[in-house]
Amino acid sequence: MSNTHTLDALIQALRRLPGVGAKSAARMAFHLLQHDRAGAQVLSQALAQAAEQVQHCARCHTFTEAPVCATCLDPERDATRLCVVETPADQSALERTGAFRGLYFVLMGRLSPLDGVGPRDIGVQELLRRATDGVVQEVILATNFTSEGETTAHVVGEALRARGLRVTRLARGVPVGSELEYVDLGTIAHALADRR
Amino acid sequence: MSNTHTLDALIQALRRLPGVGAKSAARMAFHLLQHDRAGAQVLSQALAQAAEQVQHCARCHTFTEAPVCATCLDPERDATRLCVVETPADQSALERTGAFRGLYFVLMGRLSPLDGVGPRDIGVQELLRRATDGVVQEVILATNFTSEGETTAHVVGEALRARGLRVTRLARGVPVGSELEYVDLGTIAHALADRR
Repeated sequence: MSNTHTLDALIQALRRLPGVGAKSAARMAFHLLQHDRAGAQVLSQALAQAAEQVQHCARCHTFTEAPVCATCLDPERDATRLCVVETPADQSALERTGAFRGLYFVLMGRLSPLDGVGPRDIGVQELLRRATDGVVQEVILATNFTSEGETTAHVVGEALRARGLRVTRLARGVPVGSELEYVDLGTIAHALADRR
Repeated sequence: MSNTHTLDALIQALRRLPGVGAKSAARMAFHLLQHDRAGAQVLSQALAQAAEQVQHCARCHTFTEAPVCATCLDPERDATRLCVVETPADQSALERTGAFRGLYFVLMGRLSPLDGVGPRDIGVQELLRRATDGVVQEVILATNFTSEGETTAHVVGEALRARGLRVTRLARGVPVGSELEYVDLGTIAHALADRR
């Protein structure tokens, strides 16, 4: 894009962001330098601070600045129910429903043998230890309904059941507000089978 | 996404990048913290350095770390031809063709009255001063062929012609390698009118 080393270095660095190619990176660099230098400074500091301070909760593995996250420390939450999710974003989606008051275990990923992500990478051993603390009675598998999420739920679920835990999975069915005509057939078939 | 302030601050800061919404920002933050902390540090430093060191060339307005950019200082370039482009990325595209050995003036934007971008914001006065240095004989308008780029070319072109300069525009026509059947009609009409 340019004959300045500093600018080229910025464009290269922006390309490390997921989903950002050469042209997007150049457009971002141009925008920040031409219209939002303050934004560049703010982002620079936020990145340095997060990379230095954000760690993993010792109990649930989610991102936190403390050794144990605020959710795990909250005495009002129901410690008998443990919900397993793939990412903090999924955890946040569940929290926003207000329908779950138990605790979480965040895998920080999903099983994906093709990408070299195995049970060790998503902390399955830690989950088994966490779930067999004698307090947890039910583990709710809330991994995504993608093939990788389903595989993860299957593997994790088997291991938990083998240790005598009650394991449930989020219900599959027709999304709220949708018309049957536009819902995919696999979803309708599941909704039929799981009718109540 | 989370209950950590540092992480939320990072997600908010990432949203200042053009084309990045709440979900993309959360995905980027997750990726950097989970899989590429080194990348977060590199990007942080690149941003701080660029925001501090990158300035505008006093002659052509492009980004540079020196008072005058390397292109403007190159004695091998043809100083009688001045090419006007919107952005450093456009300049870079022209440079990669190897077909132009003159100098540039980078507007760092385009006229866009609806967005409040007027002649002052793209340095029209500076361009007029630059183009009337007694050396420049031809100004080539290479703004984009969008409505804003065309408007910019028109306004800038009129002002330059009023000062007795020879003003040309990049040719419009059928792109190399394309089949007429798939080229839009406006382009074909222009290619017909400008046939040679």
